[in-house]
Amino acid sequence: MAALAPYAGHAHVVGLTGSPGVGKSTATSALVRVLRAEGKRVGVLAVDPSSPFSGGALLGDRVRMGDHSLDEGVYIRSMASRGHLGGLAWTTPQALRVLDAAGFDVVLVETVGVGQSEVEVAGLADTTVVLLAPGMGDGIQAAKAGILEIGDVFVVNKADREGADQTRRDLRSMINLSERRDGAWKPPIVSTVARAGTGFDELAASLAEHRAWLGETGELTRRRVKRARDEIEAIALTALRTRWGQVGRNADLDDLAASVAAGESDPYAAADRLLAGLET
Amino acid sequence: MAALAPYAGHAHVVGLTGSPGVGKSTATSALVRVLRAEGKRVGVLAVDPSSPFSGGALLGDRVRMGDHSLDEGVYIRSMASRGHLGGLAWTTPQALRVLDAAGFDVVLVETVGVGQSEVEVAGLADTTVVLLAPGMGDGIQAAKAGILEIGDVFVVNKADREGADQTRRDLRSMINLSERRDGAWKPPIVSTVARAGTGFDELAASLAEHRAWLGETGELTRRRVKRARDEIEAIALTALRTRWGQVGRNADLDDLAASVAAGESDPYAAADRLLAGLET
Repeated sequence: MAALAPYAGHAHVVGLTGSPGVGKSTATSALVRVLRAEGKRVGVLAVDPSSPFSGGALLGDRVRMGDHSLDEGVYIRSMASRGHLGGLAWTTPQALRVLDAAGFDVVLVETVGVGQSEVEVAGLADTTVVLLAPGMGDGIQAAKAGILEIGDVFVVNKADREGADQTRRDLRSMINLSERRDGAWKPPIVSTVARAGTGFDELAASLAEHRAWLGETGELTRRRVKRARDEIEAIALTALRTRWGQVGRNADLDDLAASVAAGESDPYAAADRLLAGLET
Repeated sequence: MAALAPYAGHAHVVGLTGSPGVGKSTATSALVRVLRAEGKRVGVLAVDPSSPFSGGALLGDRVRMGDHSLDEGVYIRSMASRGHLGGLAWTTPQALRVLDAAGFDVVLVETVGVGQSEVEVAGLADTTVVLLAPGMGDGIQAAKAGILEIGDVFVVNKADREGADQTRRDLRSMINLSERRDGAWKPPIVSTVARAGTGFDELAASLAEHRAWLGETGELTRRRVKRARDEIEAIALTALRTRWGQVGRNADLDDLAASVAAGESDPYAAADRLLAGLET
């Protein structure tokens, strides 16, 4: 990592997120095709546990990305994400850094749609793309799930389906309603049909436009410092968790947990003992 | 918390999770009604950012829980969850502990469906209920999203809709395929129509059956020790994050982040400096 540090900072990191079923994987694949046609080298990190790239080759979905499997300008890596607090925050930035230092022009980070992990991963990206599809919960659900705040570019996929116009309208009015400072980025809404590859030239153009805006306003540096901060913190926390897992090294976390579960102690007192162990 | 510790351990903690749109809030409300009819006192914690209970009173969804607003045997509390790593893991167990010590018989924890936060909250519950609905992604999506492993009881809500039989069949065959040890719990599948209140007697019976199984097998204690462990760790980590946010107290995290973002340092070296600051 120390050796890679001076080479990082070139790649445009683009996060793609959305609920299961909106067509994220197909859209990612279609976007890769357009970026490749522009001559860009593209890395894909799939941190979505429901992604065909990450482990579960259920129903042959993996085939969708097969288009790119012989293309040396495309690198695809799946990230195991489940199981421990801050897992994504720890491993994803490392993989990003490697792809960035290796000279990829764009790194796409595909994540599943709702909750904590989405927000974590939004913090990793220079540009966050939120995908919706008609009838998949629509704009109101989007607003509730808090995705309006994290989206830099919105995509209404499956735009040939009934209800797509309504989804676009809902989204537009909610974006207009949300408070934005003067000079702030106004998220565009791009319509796509991922299975047909329609709309991805426009999406690629929106991504490039957002990247340019980030550079001009200094927002790029701000986001990347924030990202580094989260990464450092996650690495430090992971190191601490490893120490706490080692019996006898500090106050034994398992013993403390058993006494809390039995009602003999409270978790604050137990946490104090754990932290006191660090300082000796 | 120290004063509450001896009074905890009575409540049956039930997590309810599922994607936005499966009808979690309506189902939670219907389940509360059945549990109240059995004479049980019920607490509800909503840690779903899309829940009508937690902040966003969009479209008057809040009305659904209005049925219980005058019932003194029901307590409803919404938990803000977004924004920082481990937020749920820190605040939700505290609220659980208070409701438990206050003598609630059942505490329902409602969370949104996919990703890290769901898995975190599954760790908090004695019994995890996973809700699906026909056409909302179905069984295959469920398998991909990793929810098969965390569900103790599955609910196919909107069971009067087309495709419900298929969702049930998919789910059943996937549960049968998944590896389970001898004597392990075999998750039942309950069909409900939340808007009509249908199927919730059966759901309440399945929950009671799972609670009995947990007690008989010693699994209850195992889960609760695990929960205490996560809680202690989260409290300790939160305390550390607060320290790291204080300029000058340790190595300054913001300065370290700026140097990593600029490519002058790597995040591992920065994390080492942060941790070294703890020990002095």
